[in-house]
This record gives sequence, C-alpha cells and structure tokens, in this order.
Amino acid sequence: MENIPYKIYLNEDELPKQWYNLRADMKNKPAPLLNAATMKPITAEELAPVFCDELIKQELDDTTAYFDIPEEILNFYKMYRPAPLTRAYFLEKKLDTPAKIYYKFEGNNTSGSHKLNSAIAQAYYAKKQGLKGVTTETGAGQWGTALSMACSYFDLDCKVYMVKCSYEQKPFRREVMRTYGASVTPSPSMETAVGRKINAEFPGTGGSLGCAISEAVEAATSMEGYRYVLGSVLNQVLLHQSIIGLESKLAMDKFGIKPDIIIGCAGGGSNLGGLIAPFMGEKIRGEADYRFIAVEPKSCPSFTRGKYAYDYCDTGAVCPLQKMYTLGSGFMPAATHAGGLRYHGMSSTLSQLYDDGLMEAVSVDQTDVFAAAEMFARVEGTLPAPESSHAIRVAIDEALKCKETGEEKTIFFGLTGTGYFDMMSYEKFHNGVMQNYVPTDEEIEKALAKLPKVE
Amino acid sequence: MENIPYKIYLNEDELPKQWYNLRADMKNKPAPLLNAATMKPITAEELAPVFCDELIKQELDDTTAYFDIPEEILNFYKMYRPAPLTRAYFLEKKLDTPAKIYYKFEGNNTSGSHKLNSAIAQAYYAKKQGLKGVTTETGAGQWGTALSMACSYFDLDCKVYMVKCSYEQKPFRREVMRTYGASVTPSPSMETAVGRKINAEFPGTGGSLGCAISEAVEAATSMEGYRYVLGSVLNQVLLHQSIIGLESKLAMDKFGIKPDIIIGCAGGGSNLGGLIAPFMGEKIRGEADYRFIAVEPKSCPSFTRGKYAYDYCDTGAVCPLQKMYTLGSGFMPAATHAGGLRYHGMSSTLSQLYDDGLMEAVSVDQTDVFAAAEMFARVEGTLPAPESSHAIRVAIDEALKCKETGEEKTIFFGLTGTGYFDMMSYEKFHNGVMQNYVPTDEEIEKALAKLPKVE
Repeated sequence: MENIPYKIYLNEDELPKQWYNLRADMKNKPAPLLNAATMKPITAEELAPVFCDELIKQELDDTTAYFDIPEEILNFYKMYRPAPLTRAYFLEKKLDTPAKIYYKFEGNNTSGSHKLNSAIAQAYYAKKQGLKGVTTETGAGQWGTALSMACSYFDLDCKVYMVKCSYEQKPFRREVMRTYGASVTPSPSMETAVGRKINAEFPGTGGSLGCAISEAVEAATSMEGYRYVLGSVLNQVLLHQSIIGLESKLAMDKFGIKPDIIIGCAGGGSNLGGLIAPFMGEKIRGEADYRFIAVEPKSCPSFTRGKYAYDYCDTGAVCPLQKMYTLGSGFMPAATHAGGLRYHGMSSTLSQLYDDGLMEAVSVDQTDVFAAAEMFARVEGTLPAPESSHAIRVAIDEALKCKETGEEKTIFFGLTGTGYFDMMSYEKFHNGVMQNYVPTDEEIEKALAKLPKVE
Repeated sequence: MENIPYKIYLNEDELPKQWYNLRADMKNKPAPLLNAATMKPITAEELAPVFCDELIKQELDDTTAYFDIPEEILNFYKMYRPAPLTRAYFLEKKLDTPAKIYYKFEGNNTSGSHKLNSAIAQAYYAKKQGLKGVTTETGAGQWGTALSMACSYFDLDCKVYMVKCSYEQKPFRREVMRTYGASVTPSPSMETAVGRKINAEFPGTGGSLGCAISEAVEAATSMEGYRYVLGSVLNQVLLHQSIIGLESKLAMDKFGIKPDIIIGCAGGGSNLGGLIAPFMGEKIRGEADYRFIAVEPKSCPSFTRGKYAYDYCDTGAVCPLQKMYTLGSGFMPAATHAGGLRYHGMSSTLSQLYDDGLMEAVSVDQTDVFAAAEMFARVEGTLPAPESSHAIRVAIDEALKCKETGEEKTIFFGLTGTGYFDMMSYEKFHNGVMQNYVPTDEEIEKALAKLPKVE
C-alpha cells in the first residue's frame, strides 16, 4: 500500500474561498439563453421575474473566472465540508487492477448528495434579496432535500414539485423535507395550468424533471415574493458545484496525485460540471491533459443519442431556450431508478465542451449500474445512490481495462451521494425484477421533431 | 467564534491502535457472568458454544488495560474513521447559550451508527476461528446492518433476528442488510422454540431485544460452525467501542478542550460505555473530574427505575446471568421509535459505575426527544437517529441551564447515528400522533418479581 491515506480531508482553513467559472476559460463559449417570445438572447431584466438577481448575474457572466463565496455560505459549508477524497484501495483489491482509483464523496450530509453546495448558495441570494420563498422541482428528492435544508437555515419558505414516480418510490424523502419545513407536491399536479395540461396529454404519467420544472416556474412567477431555483443544468449551479472539483484538486495536489481519467454521472450536469471544472480549465489552457467521461443512462441518453440544438429546458416550454444536447423537451423518459438523471437535456457548458471534443460520453444499462453499486457497497462500505453508481460502473470498466493492458492509470470519479432512500430500487435489483429501458429511434426522432425553430 | 474548527478530523496515522478496557481501572469490578445451570461464575469453556473464543477472552478479562487492534480491523476502520468531533456552533447560537457544545458523530457510514466499530471486530474473530457464520438480533436495525457489512467484508454467513416492530417500521433496513448478503427474520418468529413460546405467551407482540437475543442464541447453538454475536451490553462490545472515546479524547487534547459534562444515550450501553471509557478512567484514577449522564427512554428506564441485581440478558433465559440494572427480563417495553433503546437491562460495567455513584442517569419522553431531534437537524444539518436524540435532548437541557446561570460549561455528547431509516417515526411526530409511554409501577414490579434467585 502506498503512502496515501484512505481518505484525504483538507483542513478547514484550506477550503476554497472562491468558486471557479469554467466558462471564463472556454474558447467557444456556451450559446446564450434565448427569450422564448423574441428568440433573442435573454436579458437580466427578462429573467428577473423567474430568478434571483444575483444568480442572474452569475448565470450570464462568462468572463469572470472567480467569484468570492460569501462568508455566510462558507460557514454553512463547514457544516459538512470538506468532503473526503477517498482512495478506493478496497475496490482496487477486489478488481485486482493496477489502476489507482479515487473518488470524491459528496454524500456525508443529510441531503445525501452534492446538491447542498448549490442549494445553500441559491437560498442565500434569495434571502439577501428579501424574498419570502422559493419554488423548485426535484427528481430523486436529493435536490429538494438539499433546498429544504438550505431554506430552513435562512428561514425561507420552500415549495417543492417532486417527479411523481420518485415521490411514490421514495416516500421517506418527503418526510426529510418536512423535517426541514418544506411542502412537497407530486408532479405533474393539478395545481398549475401546465401540470393540468401535461396530465391531460399523458394520463397516468410518472412525470419527469422537465414537467416539474414547468410547474415550479409557474408557481414562482404567480406568487408575490417568490422566485424559482434549479438544482442543475444552469451555469450558476455549475459555478457553485465547482467547489467539488476545487477541493478535489487541492487534495490531489497536496499528495501529488494526477488523474488520467475523470468520470462523472450526467443528468443535468451539475455534479459533472463541478467535478471537472478546474481540471478542464487546465486542459483548455494547455497546462495539463485529462480524459473526461460523462456517464448517462441508456434510458435517457442526451449526449449519446441527442441533438445539439436550441430547446426548452422544461416540458411546458415556460423557460428560456438553451442550446444543449437534448432528446427534445417532449421526451418522456422511462421510470428508471436514477430519478436525478431523467432529464431530456444537458448543461449548455458541458454540451459545448462535448461538441468541442473535450469530453467523451457513454451510456449504461441500469442493471449493470446496480451490479456495480452492490459491488461497491460491499467493498468500499458506502451504499451509493443509483445516479452516482453510473460513474462507479464506468470507473470499474476502465479499471478492468487497465487490468487487461497492465496500465497503472489513475482513475478519479465523483461519488455524488448515498442510496439510503433508494432501497426499493435495490430491492427490485435483488429480486431480479429490474428492467432496462432503451428508447427506440422512433421515440427519439418524434421528440426531436418538435424542437423549436431557431435561426 | 473561537479558534476551534467546526469539525476536528484526526489524521489517519493518529488513529488509536489499541482499545481501552475500562474494567482494568475500576476499583469495584463488574460482577461476573453466572452460568444459569450452576449459578456459579461462567467459564470460558462453558461460553465456547455460544461465543467466539477470542471474544470470550476479552469478555472475561478485567485486568488488561489495553488490547491491540488487529491490523485487518484497523484497515477496515480507515474506511469510515476517523469520525469527526464536531463543535456545535450552530446549535449554541440557536440556544443562545454560553455553553460550548461538542459531539462525536458516528453516523458517517452505511450502517448509520457506531455499531460498525464492534461488528467488524466480532466478524474478524469469527473468521479467524474458521467459523461459517454468525447469528444476532437487531432492534432499530443499525446493529444488523453493521454486522451484515462486517460479515460481507470477511465473507461470513450472517443471520439476523430483527425485533418485529422495527422490522415493520423500517422495511428499508432489511434491503440494506440484503445488499450485504444477510438473511433477516422478524422476531419473535416461529423458527425457534423460544420464539414459538414467546408468541404463545404474548400473542401479537412487537417483540423486544430480549426476545430476539434468545432466538439468535438458539439458532447459533443449533447450527454447526456458527456462533452468536451481540451488538451491545457485553464487556467485549464496550471494549471495541472505546475507539469512540479514545478518538474523541485525542481530538480534544489536540485543541485543549476539556469537557465538564459527558452525555450519551443508553440502551444496552455500548455507545455510552465506549464514549466515556478514557474519561471515566481518568476520573477513577483521580487525574480529572467529569460529570457523566446516561440518557434512557421513560418507556424503558432500566437505570432510573430498575433494580441492580442478577438477571437474564434475554427474555428466553437461554443466556448467562449478568448483574446489572434491570427491569426484569420479562419486561416488554412499549413499541417506541428508539428501537435500539428497548432493552430491559444494561451493561454490567455501566451498572457498576452507576451503583458506585460515578455516573448519573435521566429518562426522557420520546416527544421531547423528537423535538430536540428536529431542532438539531435544522441547525446542525444532520438528521439524527431517535436513539442518539436522547443525548441531544439532555445536551440541550444542560446548555439551557447554562444560559440561565451564565456558566460557560463544555458539554460533550455522543451522536451515535443518523435517522435516515426512521422517517416513519419522524412522520408520526410531524403529524402530532406520537405518544409517550411510561410503564406503571405495577408493570415494573411484576417483571422484577420474576428475577432469578441468586445467593
């Protein structure tokens, strides 16, 4: 065993004090958001009814490389950060691979995932603006839980639209959110115009992140003193999540570790974008080279089977348009167990990087993902979230390739969270009744045919 | 804010390499276990069919102060240790108290509690002895989960009898145990003679730890190559759990922190015994003084309303007798939500310390406990287990006393685990339908009247 500890914790005074805005270093910037009414780049004023003012600034700024993290947020981060960078000695031994495997574990907090990093930032800016509360959507419930915790901390009202199939699969998530004082509504609901429309068009649907976003935006803009906040996809979220990559890089530099391959699961892209940010910055600036792999479910393959085009971020088309890899905002993913990855689109920053050939993407079947999750739980102790397990699957596959070739590559992946609220999914896997879903070409073509026309 | 971080993590090379056996320093030793057939102190040979050989040595040794932790166990500990010593700055602020509050958090692992510290030790010694597997009981499911993880690591078979009311309240715990390859049976079951007897005597009972122990012991002794392992009560378990107190003491010494009051929840006593061990050692040796408070549920008040006497450790009276504070092995506690504290007796070591006036005990109502739990979750982030929240309740009460008197006491408590699998209990609390249970004097007298006669 080498002279590297199982877990590297930074000291509190080593924690990053700024977020890193990768867009500032990108040669090809992500395309601007478009106003759906004018089809022209959206302005801060036009976004103001939906988002908090300070977050709009962060969203639209693609030139400032670093943003100071406000002290109130730094204090909150100390509640659960630094997150450990872990050397997967047990997994390496189990795989009998010459590869060195590391993972950044973001699950050591009650929300169970990295989502808290951005939730506390968004709640802070909402409070600073003097708002009463915020609305949002949640898939697996991790983002909703994180936002509930953050709103409770700043004494803000929190209204969560939860994707119906997750609401039903994860009843206990609702109680965690209630513990933190949030209200939770299954989506599509009959409370909003867009929810009623979606229910009429797709009777009995389990919902999707795209639907839930539409409902949350409608709710925010129809209530005085409320704004909408989003747990992924947006540039502001990737900015906050850069804390993951920055901490990882500091810990690696301290021990002279240099990853060859960096792997993250990709739903809307917040974890992956945050994880890779400082490493991708080095690559773009020509200071270092890394292989980046985005892992998505075969059931919702935006990178690997989607189209790089302007599209709505939500099913109800109430949000601005974003240029991204998309399956079409009308695409309705199967009710798989990685609720956090059931999103038709992808972060515009990651989409541009992928289009520029700076990053790879692969898609995986959920039964293969759960097999990796169970192996990981048994040898590394931590029972991972289905979302995170997509990255585990590909990290294992890459480590097994090293076993074949004898290469001693250093593999680094993001372990975004724990699966403690996903035990019904694990039960299906144990009982051998878990299915895989792969959309047909026709399904995808049908959804893509409805992409909005943009010059 | 002082110059003490929110969380103190020891470095990996600072982790304790020996367990501390508090009994070696006790002037009045705990009374010996008695053989139920002869009513004489039980011998290692007589215990051999039930327990692993090496664990029997640890159980019976009250003179060796330190035991080396085997390297295989140290390696496993690195998977989830060091556990952070946390300064509760947020809670102090919320309470507006001059008290300084610290807690040792043992929930950063998939079993969700401190139980893993002893589980891995017991699995290790079972494996070393060449056994096929082990049987055990579990209340809230934390011990069963911990043992499943430990057995999976050493490739041992694991059979868990889970207290029926917890089995029903916490269905997802079963799937975690299955993820790690264990089998789980609700207790009392119809699989064992003692289970059938208890079911006949108390039809429809939700079970108790005492019942489940009897079933697990019967199963272990009737199968070739199996032994019984126990998650609390026994001296060997307190020995392994001393890692909690040792790590805490090291972290405190590093920052010059000296607690005035040390608080832990007490079911069978494993967390409390481990938490206080090095501090109590100092007190006994006259090197320092501390106030120790054991917190138990009003529904199962072994210290505060029990009798210090020889009693059976289990309902079925298949185990040796132990001198301890007990409500009688026939006492059937109400189906409260802190399953891990529903035990009629108490560690013999802690019982002796309490009888010697070296420790205090208080009992609390579960609604007060959940109110403390929710406050703690909101300000400190971590959603605590109902068991752990007993200690939180009393830590808050002591901090509020400091607010009245203006005293700047340092309060230290053990946060044994997380409540992620207890959301049905939180739901009852949120919905205002949680009840308190206090046994009548008659109930307790009735159970105590059946104590075995020992000269």
